[in-house]
Amino acid sequence: MKKHNFNAGPSVLPQFTIENTAKAVLDFNGIGLSIMEISHRSKDFQPVVDEAVALVKELMSIPEGYSVLFLGGGASLQFCMVPFNLLEKKAAYLNTGTWASKAEKEAKLFGEVVEVASSKGANFNYIPKDFTIPADADYFHITTNNTIFGTELRKDLDSPVPLIADMSSDILSRPIDVSKYGLIYAGAQKNLGPAGVTIVIVKDELLGKVSRPIPTMLDYRTHIKEGSMFNTPPVVPIYASLQTLKWLKELGGVSAMEKMNIEKASLLYDEIDRNKLFVGTAATEDRSLMNICFVMKEEYKELEDEFGKFAAAQGMVGIKGHRSVGGFRASTYNALPKESVVALIDAMKEFEKLH
Amino acid sequence: MKKHNFNAGPSVLPQFTIENTAKAVLDFNGIGLSIMEISHRSKDFQPVVDEAVALVKELMSIPEGYSVLFLGGGASLQFCMVPFNLLEKKAAYLNTGTWASKAEKEAKLFGEVVEVASSKGANFNYIPKDFTIPADADYFHITTNNTIFGTELRKDLDSPVPLIADMSSDILSRPIDVSKYGLIYAGAQKNLGPAGVTIVIVKDELLGKVSRPIPTMLDYRTHIKEGSMFNTPPVVPIYASLQTLKWLKELGGVSAMEKMNIEKASLLYDEIDRNKLFVGTAATEDRSLMNICFVMKEEYKELEDEFGKFAAAQGMVGIKGHRSVGGFRASTYNALPKESVVALIDAMKEFEKLH
Repeated sequence: MKKHNFNAGPSVLPQFTIENTAKAVLDFNGIGLSIMEISHRSKDFQPVVDEAVALVKELMSIPEGYSVLFLGGGASLQFCMVPFNLLEKKAAYLNTGTWASKAEKEAKLFGEVVEVASSKGANFNYIPKDFTIPADADYFHITTNNTIFGTELRKDLDSPVPLIADMSSDILSRPIDVSKYGLIYAGAQKNLGPAGVTIVIVKDELLGKVSRPIPTMLDYRTHIKEGSMFNTPPVVPIYASLQTLKWLKELGGVSAMEKMNIEKASLLYDEIDRNKLFVGTAATEDRSLMNICFVMKEEYKELEDEFGKFAAAQGMVGIKGHRSVGGFRASTYNALPKESVVALIDAMKEFEKLH
Repeated sequence: MKKHNFNAGPSVLPQFTIENTAKAVLDFNGIGLSIMEISHRSKDFQPVVDEAVALVKELMSIPEGYSVLFLGGGASLQFCMVPFNLLEKKAAYLNTGTWASKAEKEAKLFGEVVEVASSKGANFNYIPKDFTIPADADYFHITTNNTIFGTELRKDLDSPVPLIADMSSDILSRPIDVSKYGLIYAGAQKNLGPAGVTIVIVKDELLGKVSRPIPTMLDYRTHIKEGSMFNTPPVVPIYASLQTLKWLKELGGVSAMEKMNIEKASLLYDEIDRNKLFVGTAATEDRSLMNICFVMKEEYKELEDEFGKFAAAQGMVGIKGHRSVGGFRASTYNALPKESVVALIDAMKEFEKLH
């Protein structure tokens, strides 16, 4: 049976990425060796990194003055790398969910942290809009998409200080104006590739301004200077990410993605709003195009387990909601085909009829 | 033509690892999804981490009281994680090469560093033996195998303070007495799998003794508590490493590996010593079983390029020596078959006849 992969991350990838990566693991470029067993500094692998960097720059229209890095360690490592490199005295954070909270917590080890607003009191079901960014902060940190709570900040904020964004779960899902950001980071395992690599896009002129010593591996300048090759980079995850970048370009780039993502999400949100059994959990105006969270209406709560099994029996994978929200979460990343959304909607309709 | 892969890292892997990883990238365990697109917390992936940890414990005979971690970020990240977690006042380092120097450099950001000995003056062609480890150091750091210079410390040292070892390029190549070590770390990309994951074996009781705050991701206790699942781990590199661990067990474990490694290295060192054209660069008593460095004798120096091309024409890959040593380096890790060593020896003999 065809699987519909709604996993929140690691998550669905294009078949193009899967097949090309498997092929390279067996024999890379026909050289008679696996991509896992060649030097990252070889003439065979260097073009992979170069092309991946070039495609990120092209697809995201990154202006001059920014560096693109592929780093190991996961986005969680960025939670401390950002303040290590950028926080001299004070930083501002917008608290919109679990990951935003974790990022904020790490910054407190490095200096004063101002939480400009938080939606914690409402179980993060909306994104605060009414806040003031302190003009004397070293930076302002946001999480553009909140994977667990299904909210998304779908516009590029104006900030009087460098804007730092964790875009782990919505990078490359829509066009953004990179010039409005000081630094963007994203773990690959949602819209790009397998876990194990993190993209960092950083405005070079922001670096080198803090007075603390920075361990070499945690200093962005190390990786900029060495083109992400200071140490052995995560070769396979980078190769897989490159495949997804190529696939994305072929399909028309981030504008085309946004169009498809809006279409997929609209179909599913419409059904959630129409179906008598379900209700969405996120504030309507902040609904994410990437993670669509919904629960059974109060009066149908006892059907929750049953619907989970019903959907699973029809090939739906990974739609159980995170324990902080409960219910269901359909992650509809770039690579999720529209047919999977339609299949889920059909299951919801069918289940409604049965009850 | 059959390739003989002498790459220093990433390097040759067992065919078993390559084929099983390629298979899992296409379809993991027959679940209809790639291993790249499933949750690391799923019932499908958890057994991968559990089995990998169990096999490392079994193969290395790790005693109670130690934790085994699979972390992202590379061994270079350990250069700062070790002092972050363990250096309160003073640490001792043995400087035996490029990587040892890099590890030592990071420690200086955290406290006093005593270099107990260094072979830098002799271009690291031997491992110093005559040194005193300060009894008041928080730990003593060594690099058991020096990939670039072809020297190896093939015994477990006695140390009055916790012994920390970077075993990136010789882990699982011979039996060691883990109880003599406080912490062992190793990047996967020599004897285990693809780049992107680092094994850490740490004696639990050493942790929690420094007074500095440690960023969450850099604190070993975080990863111990969460079984290497605090954040999304590098799924594919861990899966590939598991395959190599299974392969290694099937072949008889680390004792069998040591026997094969001694055999392979002896064959090649004997030829280097016999052949009129070549000479080994490392002190005989410190010769590495993993990286065999040799150059053309002074009177044949002009033949160096020619031999490189001659060997390449016969399928030898990656035998160019590191620029710090020059000449040639044949890396003979666990997975390199004896036939590759024999092929190289044949090429050396053939080349000798021609000159």
